[in-house]
This record gives sequence, structure tokens and C-alpha cells, in this order.
Amino acid sequence: MKSAISALATGLAVLSLLSNVVDHVSARPNPKSGSKWMKDSRARGGLGGSRSHPIRRQDSGASCAAPVAQSIAAPKSNIWAGLTDAEAAPVVAWLFSQKDLNLTTASDAGEWDNTITLVELMIPNKTDSLSYLDGNGTAPARYAHIQLDHRASEEPYFQDILVGPLPIKNGTTRYEPLTYPYTRQTQGKVRNLEADSDSLSDWKHNVSASIADITLELFNGTSTGLDNDTIDAWGQDPYWQEDGIIQWNQFWGLPTDGFDEGTLLPLGLYFAANLTGRDPSKWALLGWFYNDVFYPTTEEFKTAFYSEGFEKLKPNIGGSWAATDQKGPVLPLDTLTPPLAVTPQGSRYFVDTEQKYIKWMDFEFYVAFSRDTGMRLFDIKYKGQRIIYELGLEEALAHYAGNDPVQSGTAYLDTYYGFGPYSFQLVAGYDCPSYATYLNTSFYTAETTHTHINSICLFESTADYPLQRHSTSDYVSITKNTYFTIRSVATVGNYDYAFTYSFHLDGSVHVEVRASGYIQSAYWANNGDYGFHIHDALSGSMHDHVLNYKLDLDVLGTANTLTSTKLVPTTETYPWSFGGARNTMKLARSHIANEDEGKLSWGENSATMWSVVNTDAPNDFGEARGYRIMPATSPMHLTVQNSTNLAKAAQWATHDLFVTRQKDTEPKSAHPANSQDVHDPIVDFDAFFDGESLEQEDLVVWFNLGMHHVPHTGDLPNTVFTSAHAGLQILPLNYLPGDPSRATINQVRVEYGSGNKSSITSFGQAQPTCAVDLAAYEPDLSNYVGDVVIRKFPFDPNDPYFAITGID
Amino acid sequence: MKSAISALATGLAVLSLLSNVVDHVSARPNPKSGSKWMKDSRARGGLGGSRSHPIRRQDSGASCAAPVAQSIAAPKSNIWAGLTDAEAAPVVAWLFSQKDLNLTTASDAGEWDNTITLVELMIPNKTDSLSYLDGNGTAPARYAHIQLDHRASEEPYFQDILVGPLPIKNGTTRYEPLTYPYTRQTQGKVRNLEADSDSLSDWKHNVSASIADITLELFNGTSTGLDNDTIDAWGQDPYWQEDGIIQWNQFWGLPTDGFDEGTLLPLGLYFAANLTGRDPSKWALLGWFYNDVFYPTTEEFKTAFYSEGFEKLKPNIGGSWAATDQKGPVLPLDTLTPPLAVTPQGSRYFVDTEQKYIKWMDFEFYVAFSRDTGMRLFDIKYKGQRIIYELGLEEALAHYAGNDPVQSGTAYLDTYYGFGPYSFQLVAGYDCPSYATYLNTSFYTAETTHTHINSICLFESTADYPLQRHSTSDYVSITKNTYFTIRSVATVGNYDYAFTYSFHLDGSVHVEVRASGYIQSAYWANNGDYGFHIHDALSGSMHDHVLNYKLDLDVLGTANTLTSTKLVPTTETYPWSFGGARNTMKLARSHIANEDEGKLSWGENSATMWSVVNTDAPNDFGEARGYRIMPATSPMHLTVQNSTNLAKAAQWATHDLFVTRQKDTEPKSAHPANSQDVHDPIVDFDAFFDGESLEQEDLVVWFNLGMHHVPHTGDLPNTVFTSAHAGLQILPLNYLPGDPSRATINQVRVEYGSGNKSSITSFGQAQPTCAVDLAAYEPDLSNYVGDVVIRKFPFDPNDPYFAITGID
Repeated sequence: MKSAISALATGLAVLSLLSNVVDHVSARPNPKSGSKWMKDSRARGGLGGSRSHPIRRQDSGASCAAPVAQSIAAPKSNIWAGLTDAEAAPVVAWLFSQKDLNLTTASDAGEWDNTITLVELMIPNKTDSLSYLDGNGTAPARYAHIQLDHRASEEPYFQDILVGPLPIKNGTTRYEPLTYPYTRQTQGKVRNLEADSDSLSDWKHNVSASIADITLELFNGTSTGLDNDTIDAWGQDPYWQEDGIIQWNQFWGLPTDGFDEGTLLPLGLYFAANLTGRDPSKWALLGWFYNDVFYPTTEEFKTAFYSEGFEKLKPNIGGSWAATDQKGPVLPLDTLTPPLAVTPQGSRYFVDTEQKYIKWMDFEFYVAFSRDTGMRLFDIKYKGQRIIYELGLEEALAHYAGNDPVQSGTAYLDTYYGFGPYSFQLVAGYDCPSYATYLNTSFYTAETTHTHINSICLFESTADYPLQRHSTSDYVSITKNTYFTIRSVATVGNYDYAFTYSFHLDGSVHVEVRASGYIQSAYWANNGDYGFHIHDALSGSMHDHVLNYKLDLDVLGTANTLTSTKLVPTTETYPWSFGGARNTMKLARSHIANEDEGKLSWGENSATMWSVVNTDAPNDFGEARGYRIMPATSPMHLTVQNSTNLAKAAQWATHDLFVTRQKDTEPKSAHPANSQDVHDPIVDFDAFFDGESLEQEDLVVWFNLGMHHVPHTGDLPNTVFTSAHAGLQILPLNYLPGDPSRATINQVRVEYGSGNKSSITSFGQAQPTCAVDLAAYEPDLSNYVGDVVIRKFPFDPNDPYFAITGID
Repeated sequence: MKSAISALATGLAVLSLLSNVVDHVSARPNPKSGSKWMKDSRARGGLGGSRSHPIRRQDSGASCAAPVAQSIAAPKSNIWAGLTDAEAAPVVAWLFSQKDLNLTTASDAGEWDNTITLVELMIPNKTDSLSYLDGNGTAPARYAHIQLDHRASEEPYFQDILVGPLPIKNGTTRYEPLTYPYTRQTQGKVRNLEADSDSLSDWKHNVSASIADITLELFNGTSTGLDNDTIDAWGQDPYWQEDGIIQWNQFWGLPTDGFDEGTLLPLGLYFAANLTGRDPSKWALLGWFYNDVFYPTTEEFKTAFYSEGFEKLKPNIGGSWAATDQKGPVLPLDTLTPPLAVTPQGSRYFVDTEQKYIKWMDFEFYVAFSRDTGMRLFDIKYKGQRIIYELGLEEALAHYAGNDPVQSGTAYLDTYYGFGPYSFQLVAGYDCPSYATYLNTSFYTAETTHTHINSICLFESTADYPLQRHSTSDYVSITKNTYFTIRSVATVGNYDYAFTYSFHLDGSVHVEVRASGYIQSAYWANNGDYGFHIHDALSGSMHDHVLNYKLDLDVLGTANTLTSTKLVPTTETYPWSFGGARNTMKLARSHIANEDEGKLSWGENSATMWSVVNTDAPNDFGEARGYRIMPATSPMHLTVQNSTNLAKAAQWATHDLFVTRQKDTEPKSAHPANSQDVHDPIVDFDAFFDGESLEQEDLVVWFNLGMHHVPHTGDLPNTVFTSAHAGLQILPLNYLPGDPSRATINQVRVEYGSGNKSSITSFGQAQPTCAVDLAAYEPDLSNYVGDVVIRKFPFDPNDPYFAITGID
């Protein structure tokens, strides 16, 4: 395997051409092998990635400006940006030179070899970061966060290690187990339950082949591992972890029409496998389940099947009902182009593409990107003052239920797959307005840095409703509602999650997630208590999506308090009320004193306002300045209580929101391998709650967004973003003397009266009269590469990214 | 007073020129007196009111189309449209000819005269309407709904009467008390607590003058009724109705800077008046309240005031903090024009302006407009099938609380003022996109029909996020999210409510309300339990906004059932679970059997799905077809329990939503005069719940939208629409075989792979390459007339519309 190592640095160097640090390009060797796809990408990325599609500038003075973002230099280095290739390549080479690690390159590795599955920047501790950001401190030392997949062992495990400080210096660089951010102190090690994925595939095909006669009769198909298989068997993920390692599987149809409807084709025949240990010969078939009857052995199942009166249920078969293409009569006037937003005078925000630093109006922030959770934001400042140190997704679960063992057993923890690898190129004009600015992102896989072209978009929008208005007998005052958005979309298997952060003129930051894509359905028989009957033999299998976010607000420093302002009904007698008591309401003001009180709810009747304030920084009127956290949609948490599936692996899902003390040792509420040991997870969020004081401390709010999803026929073929939506607003609360949106000139006051012409005050607004060339807003999708990293289905953690086309 | 009557028909005829029935214009006499304002309006309205501002069509083939709505003829008459002037004018004349009514024209009436306060179409009974809409029945007979203000009596009252059927035929036309839609059977009569508004004004000025020495010292102002008053006294509305008719008043500063900040200038000095009876000489001053001390007499108050140590609190004084104009440094790049939506190929919807009938994609509906509740929608059909018979606001309350008697006593019921009269002209390019289509609305006041020019807007928008997407290893499929909106905005005193209904390609209808404008604040002293301290001596007075809507869904006919599908935690043992119980979840499906169960909640953890289904109309898979009702924001109802202020006048506010049997005798959940007798309101919503079966009956859902509002500094000068927002979605549930948005051609599928050029399927989408002339999208606000009917503050029910400029 050593022969592969020498190619690594070169391979990483090749990929650096796609990275955001473009000013290094000229110093690098020519690519040894660049695919056509890469060359195309370079051609497009020549200006540094902030332009995604060709916006034509026109010379005519009458033409409107092209919407290119204004450039700016970030005031500080983005200390959360990923490793450069110049940093990463030596780390990988150095790791391969560590004999004790006994590593094999991904392409050469088998089930009993050790591999590198992650090479990424270790996000610096907040403590170190603040001294750099706010003081005269140097930038925090950079470390590589490595995940190793140790499979050369009877007891395979993943291990997180740190390598650094960077850059690598042979002879002095060391690695150490990464333990401090985890509640379980096991040298950063978590067992790998899925080390033998290739063997398992073979084993399942043997099981499937043993009843090929039955699957042929029931489903007109077999699953034997051949290319012409028309059915497949896959199942619960993570595995069941009581009394051995168990996986229930179901047969599913394989799509034949080119659409991705596999999760809509359950076939209702299930089998359980005991997968304990690494010797496939000792794995055991535990039985079959069909039409609510459990058969302990294949023989018993076959005997029953061939008995008189055995009820054979119909299969689910793909077809146009499961295809997403246009169908049906064209809607009236739909052949005319729908409304379209344009930017007459170009973009109104600043981007430092290299540093992933963005400034819009009074907001500025840095963007980071990780394999586990994709895009996140750091150091969000408003009017020059930090308000949020960190904001991003921590984990997402999809917890199903059912009378059948596969749906009942399924509770995905999506960071196991990772949001980063599946944050694909955005579709200009669809995922984001055609005039958006784009950024690239990258992640590590199989000794390469893989870059997602144009996978983050930035744009301004003007809402179809104003921000402020008031009419009187003399005048109307009204303000346009223009806001700024940053978005990425991750398709984790069947579901497409759109992650949106937006910034508003009232000083608020909005967090949203929407879900589209294919549902994971269930076979209908006997599942009536767990979903609607939505197609021939199909249940819209009920499930909860819960997405946990970290919100590290810093209001005028890190010493903050979480206050509760609750509207409560009361009966009161007042000095002026002539003795009569009245039923009214009042405010109950309190705060969270310590972590024992830190598990929170939005409260009955949405009557509780939670706010992070600085009680040492009252405003001129004595109210503590702060930021309020407010649900923008119906709040929710996980329906299932004490989930047997998840055990302790997702304790962040039990309440609407939580508050803890910010600690360098508690940076994340979840670990991507929590699914591998749900009863003893490497990050047990519950362990964060140990009574520490929260009064004027550095606080972290962990809030959940999500949807209770009971799919109906309208989820076929795909769930739509309009209804599968959750959001939260982070709003100034007594933070400024007044509404900051008064600063915008994009407002008008019209004075009228007595039938005379109105008098208009427009505050110096621009009045463009240029012509917008719509051709410039027509995205050239022929250059869309669709990205290239697609989740294998079912997922194989040892070979996680099914196809990396275009990269040699 | 008879002399005035002959002018009435002419006056109404004049106004018909502004109405939407424009084809009658040529048959009418020339206006006797048309103001400049009216003439301007005619010139603009010449095409029938569907165009609000001059969009220039250009002849060049390269220019994009102008966004003029397509015309269409409504399939049926709009039987909910307001009375035409041809109908209304004879009704008014006829009423004046009824000697027993003893009516006086508004301009001539004093406190002891009877007047007409409403002339409006009586919305036909649903029973009658359906036979016309669905069968061969004739259109329902039209009746005029009249409200009379009987003040020529010791016991003044409002009375609702019906006049009809129309047209008026002298000799046969009769009037009858309107009683059948009300739960209280009192001949349509409700007492008028505010008959003596002029006398009260004088009386209050006398009280104020009696302490002019004090107000001068405390506030540097007096309230004596002179033009140069700089303070005013006004107070709780409705009056307190226990132990006499009591009103607490407060002194407030009068704005001097031209801005409408009066509700931000409370002065903290209060007095109570017993206003029982019609003899002002018997009205009694009940005492004073200042800085938490009650003084039963003026003498005692004065004595205290001039005693040593009396604490004099500082007044609230207006200033730039309360003005809405632009202030502060211009934001970076804000001088560039923000993004702007355009319609390259013109509008994509149909409007019958005369019938107020609208068709967009597979949706069609009629618009109605009333004095009490403004805009509402009728007969919403989707794919040719009625889904909603009626959708509209019923009532809105704003319930305050406080340690002071005015805020504690305030619980506005806004239909008393009416939303119709305050639904002003919309500001093109701000309230709605500049390319919107507009409709006029009208209401009756003082023997005239008053028309709001361009007070309803219609437009399409494309959201900044897609409707559907899915990425796979081979392709991405993604759909534009274009939707249709109808909006009106009503400024009821200090608050501006924007009412929005939108229609979506997934078959859903969204209902939204947003609030902006000035808060009604409180004086800070001793009010710390009731709000934040937001300015010098100002409390952001806590209050609940609750807005009740009527939603009459008809799913495949009127025989419907309200079902509940609830996600519930459970512990289950399954045939395949090897004996182990697991903590999981399941669906609890049930339905509301009768009205005793009809008061509903969205449930803990947002886990309850409410749906109106037709159990006799299962889909192909056996699920009842239906429409789901889902909160789009955090749901809420009134915090106050058994409100002493509201007593029985707003029983619709006690829960999140309600379901009752649709009855012609229960058309509305509230009456605009409920505030006049809160203990015995003319519509007691609670009386609707009398155990009637709701299984496969015609149902009405009454749902609440609203906000718990605890204003903070960011509400100064105005609350903003971004955070003061509530919404609900009405979504197909197993109603169609699949997602109907698949019909749109505005989607794309891009196939990619292995670095080759992508293959694009765009389903025949238009690809406009024309040039958009932005000058055509620049609204000409110099023609904005601002409308002309402004609520007097404080409100005077006998002279409700302060200024009707431009109408002679």
C-alpha cells in the first residue's frame, strides 16, 4: 500500500485548483490528471468561485448592472475555514508514515484494513478564538481532526485523533486521541458495527437467494447480487443493539424508470439477521416476517408459503406516480414565464471568497463547512458587535415507527452519513435566484479533497410584503422588506434538506430548514396505526424529523443570562378597581439559574418568551439588552419518549430547546458515530446538564426545528418545501434604542390630503430606469455538474460515497 | 331634514363612477360635484380598476410584456358582492321615507337624532347560495342589511334591520328586524353606550380644565377643547360595564411633529367617569389615579399634589425616536436599488373586475368586502371542485393588561370600528409588488358609498426557494415555487393589519396576518409587571392580538367530518420483537362527534393534525379525502382566562380553534356591537356549542391567528411585519392521487454524469430574452390618494370616520 502514498500529495494538489484559496494556484504543479469535468470547472471558477453562471455585462449605458458581489477583505482570517490542501496533504502523508496506525489507502483497503475516513480542521476552542478575534492574540493553532476506521481487529472501531499543530514537521508532529470534546472518555474510540459491509452484502444475497422461489412469485424478482436484480434487501440503520447486533431487513423494488423512487417500493417481506461479531459464518438468520406473522426459520416460512390459503399480498410497483417529471394537462398560462427577481444595480453585499467572509448592511459573518453538519456560521456581528459566536446544525434525526420491524427499527442519525458530502451544487434559478453569488465547499474522502462547486448561495431578496407601514389621515409611511440569505442544500439519501439563514433590517437572524425529496415509505399491510394508506400497498410511514442547532449567542460579551418572560393569566385587585378583582394577565419574569433547569419548552399557548440577555448591560431604561429566540413555525420535539431505538444517542431531541454553559469540552451535542453505540454514546447530551450556574455565564442554546410528518398522497412523488418547513427567529430584544430598519432609505412617506397631488418623500432612493436583459438571468444549466458524490443506498460506512465521478 | 333626502340618490350616483360596475357609467348623469380627486381617479380607473399605475406597453419586439391581468367572465354572478349604487340609493331614500324610523341625515344629526350607520348587502344564506351555484336555482334574493343608530330615546340602541327583497318597490317593500343570525333574540337591537359622544367630549374637557394647573405643571399642557391643546384625555374602549358604565381615561400628549405617535405619549394621570345614562349633568367623576395612588375626588388629588414630597413623574415627549422617517447613517450599498420582481411575459391570472372573480392556475374564487371585516373570499374552487365556501376574518381583539386602569381596562374588539372603512389604498411597490393588479372596495357612510381605490391587490410571486427538489447520482429534479396572493391592509387606529391569502401549486391555501404601525403603550410607573421599559416613561404594554377566522371547508360536498390524527408516544410489543417491548409512537385517529367536543387545541408538542374530510368519499386507497388545517406559525389563543373585560363578548378567543355545524343562523362568530353589552352580547359564540352532531355534516372551522405581544424598544417607532406575523395553511390531505404541483412546466430535470455536459429537460418552459424596462415598474406614487377615511382617535361611533376628504 505504500505505493499509493506518494500519489497522495499530488492528488490533493490537483484538487486545490478547485479550492477557494485560488491565489496559490500558480505556485502548484500542473495537474497530473484533470478530468474534463475538472477542466470545465476551472474555467468557470476562474474568478474565485463567487460567480456561478455567466451574467453578461453589457456595454450599453441603458443596461442594468450585473449582479456581481462586491469584493472585500475580511478583517480577520477565517479560523474556522477548512484545511487548505497545503495543510491536508502533508497530514495524510504523515499519517501513512505512522507504522503503528497500519493504514491502507481507501482504494486498496478490504474489510480487515485500517483507513482514514476524515481529515478536517479541528474547530478551534472558543476560548482561543476570542483572544485572536477580540484581542491581540495570535490565530489559534490549527490541528487536523482525523477519523480512522480501524478494521484490522476482531473488535473494529472508529477513532478520532488530532494531528498537529500544523504545519506538519516530521520528527516533532504527534497524534493524540481526541477525547476532550466527548462525554465518554474512551480515547475517541467508538465501535464500528458495520465493518464487514461487503461480507454482509454477500450474506444477505445468500439469504435472499434461499427464498428466490418465493420472491419470484411474490415480487417477480430476485436479489442475488447480480446486475439484473430487480429487488434488493436493506433495512434498519443503525442496527438494533440489544441482545446482540440485529438488523431487520425488507425487500424493496429497484426503480426501473430512472427515477429515485426506491424508498417508495417496499415489498412487505422482512428478515432479521444477528450480525454480532466479525465471522459471517456465525451470523444468524433469526426469522422471517410477512403479513403480521413471524416465522423463526426459512423452513417454517416456506412451509407456510406453500400451504393452502397462504395470503399473498400485492407488491408496490414503480411508475409515473413515483416520477417527479411534469405530468398532466399544462396549467392555464403556465407557459408564460412566472415572476422573476432582478437586481437592477447589481448586488448590494460584500464577499471575501477566499476567507468566506460576508457583509450585508450592518451584518457580517464567516462561513465554515464540515463533513458532519455542512455549512455553519461563525462570528456574526451586527453593527460591529458580535451577537452570535456560532450558529449551525448539530444533528438531525428521522425517527420512524410501525408495525413492521424495519420502520419500527429505523431512527436515522444523519450526521453518521454527514451533511457535508451531500451538499451538492445548487441549481441556479431554482434553489436560489438566478442572480445569486455562490461559494464552493469541500470535504475529505478517500485521500482526496472533494469540492462541491457552487454549493452555498448568497443573495438578497425583497419580500412581497413590506417591513413596516403606517397609514394616517395625513400620510402613509412604508418600508421595503429586503433581506439577505445564505443557503445550502443537502440530499441525505431520500430527503433533500434546504438550510437557510437570513438576515433582516430589523436586526434579526432567521434560521430555517425545509425538506423535500422522496419519503421513506412502509408496506401497508397491518401498518394502519402508523400512517395513511397512500398507494397500492403503501403506507406513508409516520416519522418525526428533529434537527438540533447550536446557537451560541454572545450579547455584549460572553457573560449572559437566559431569561423567561411569560404571559400568565391572573386575577388581580388594583388600587383603583373599586374593590373588584378582575381576570387579566401579567408577565412572569424569571431566568434559568443553572443547568438543572436547562431543559426548556416554548410553553403552553406559545406564551413563553426566551431571551439571552446581558444583565450587566442594561439599556438606558434599565432593561437588560438581549436577543430573543422565537419559533417562526409550530415548535416540536421528538414524539417518542425514552426511545428504545435511540436510547441515549439523541438526548437533545427530548425538549424544544436547552441551555448549557459554553465549554470547550462540550462543543457539539452529538457525535456522528453516536449511532454505533446508542446505549453508551460518545457524546451523551444529557451529561451536559450538571448543575453549573448559568447566571451571567457564556451560554449555548440548543434548539430543535422539525416536523411531525405523516405523509399523505400529496407527498407522492415528493414531499414539498411549502409544508415541510420549520424555522426560528433570533430577534433583538431591548438591544437597541429603537427599530434599526429606520436606517434604510428604501422607504417612502406619502403625504396627501383634500384631493391634491400627493407629496412624496423617498429619502434618496435610487430610481433605475435601465433595461434588464433577461437573458442574463437565464441560468446556463448545461454547465451544471450535479455534483458527484452520492450516497449509496443502503449506506456503507466503509465506502460511503457511491460515486466520485470525474476524479481520477 | 327631508331636504337632504332628495340629494341622496344623486350623491350615491356620483359615487357609482368609482364603483366596480363601470359599464353603467354612460347611463348615469354627470356628477353634480366631482372633486379633483374624484376626477383624477376616474381618469385612472377608466379600464375598470384592474390597473393601478401606468405600466407602459412598448412596441419594440424586444421589450417584455406589461403585467396586465387577463380578463375573464365569471361563471356565475358574485352573489356576495356589495350592493350596487343602483340598489343602495333607493334603499336609503326608502328608509328616509319611513316615518316611524324618524331618521336624520348624518350631516344634520345631533345626539338625539336617529341615523343610518350601515347599508350593505346581507350576505345570502349558504343554503340559498348553493342552490344557485350548484343547481338550477336562481340567484338568492338580495336584501339590504341596515344598521340604525337610534339615539332619539332615553335608551339609545343600534338596530340591525333587513330591507328587501331588492330592488325597492314602494308599497310592497318592508323592513324587518334582523334577528336570525344572532344568538340573542332582541329584534337586532344592542344598546349604544356612546350615544353622547359630543357631550362626553365637553364633559371631559371640563374635567381636564379643572386640573389645568396640574397638567400645565406636569405636562406643560392643557386639554380644554381648544385648537391649541397639546394634551388630550382618552381611555378604555369599550367602557366598563359593571356597576354602571365606567370609563377610565388617561392624559396623552398630542404629536407636534406630524407623525402619528400619539399612542406613544401616555402621561400617567388617569381619571374615572361614571357615564351611566344620557344626562351629562349626572355623569360623575369617580376619582383620580396617579403614581399608584387613587384619589376619590379632585380636591383630594389637588391637596396631595400641592403637598410637600408629592412625587412628580416625567412626561413622555415625542421626538425623532417616535418618527418613522429614515434616520441614521445610510447603510452600506443601500443607495443601490434592492432586488425587484418583474413579470417578463405579463400576468398569468384572470380577473373579472366587475364580478370580483379571480382564476389562477387550478384555483378560482370570488371576493367580497364588508364594513365589519373587510375582504373575504367565497366559493374557492380547486380543479373545478369547491373546497372552501367561505374564508374570512370574523373579529380581532387586542387585550391589554396593566397596573393602570386604562391599559387594564382595554380590550378592543375591532369590528366595532370595522376593517372595511380602514382598508385604504395600497402603496404600489411596497404593500404589493409594483406589477400587481388592484381592485377597489367600497362601504357605506353618511349617506354615501365610499370607495377605496386600489385597496385589494392581486399578484403572483416566485419564492426564493423551490417547491420541490431531489438530487440523485444521476439527476436533479427541481420545481419553481410560484404562488398567487390577494391582500388588503386595514389601519385600525394605531395598528396596520395586512391580510394575505395565497394559493399554491401544491393545492394549498395559506392565510396570514401581519401587524405593523404604532403600539398602544402605557405609562411606565408601576407597570413593570406588564411590559418592558422601552423609553423615558414608557411601558411596551403587554397585549394579545387574537384574530378569529371563519373557514367553511366543503370537501366534495357539505357532508364532512373533522378528524384528528395525533402522534402519540406508546410502548408496544410486536410479533417479531422477540418479546421485548419498545418505546415508540403511533397514530391515534379519531373524529369530533358533536359540538360538545368542538373546542379544540393544536395539542402539546404540535402533535395533533386536524383535518376536514369526507368519510363518504374515500380515495382509491380507502383514506377519506380531505383538507388539513395546519398552523404555519406558533399557534395561540387569548392568555386571559374568563376575561372580566370581555365577559362573553369574545368566546371565540378561548381556544386555538373550534368546529361547529354550519347553520344559516350562525353565520358569524361575533357582532360589531358585542362590545356594547359584553355580559349579554348579541352574538355569544359559546351558544353555538349545543351538542349537535358533527359527523358528515356541513362544518365550519373557526380558527385563531394572533400574537402575544410584549413590545420592546424594537417596536419603536413601529412594530414590524417580520416578527408580528401569524399564519395557517389549508392543505390537501389524501385529496388527490399525488402532488398536483407536478403539473407545472416551471420545473427542470438535469441529468449529468461522468463529467459530460448535462442534459436538460425543461418541459417547454418559456425562455424570455426580452428587455425589462424598469421605468415601467416604478410606481407613480404622486397619484396615491392615501384614501380619505381615518379613524378618529379616540373613536366616536356616532361620527366614526374622521375625515372624508374629497367627497362633497
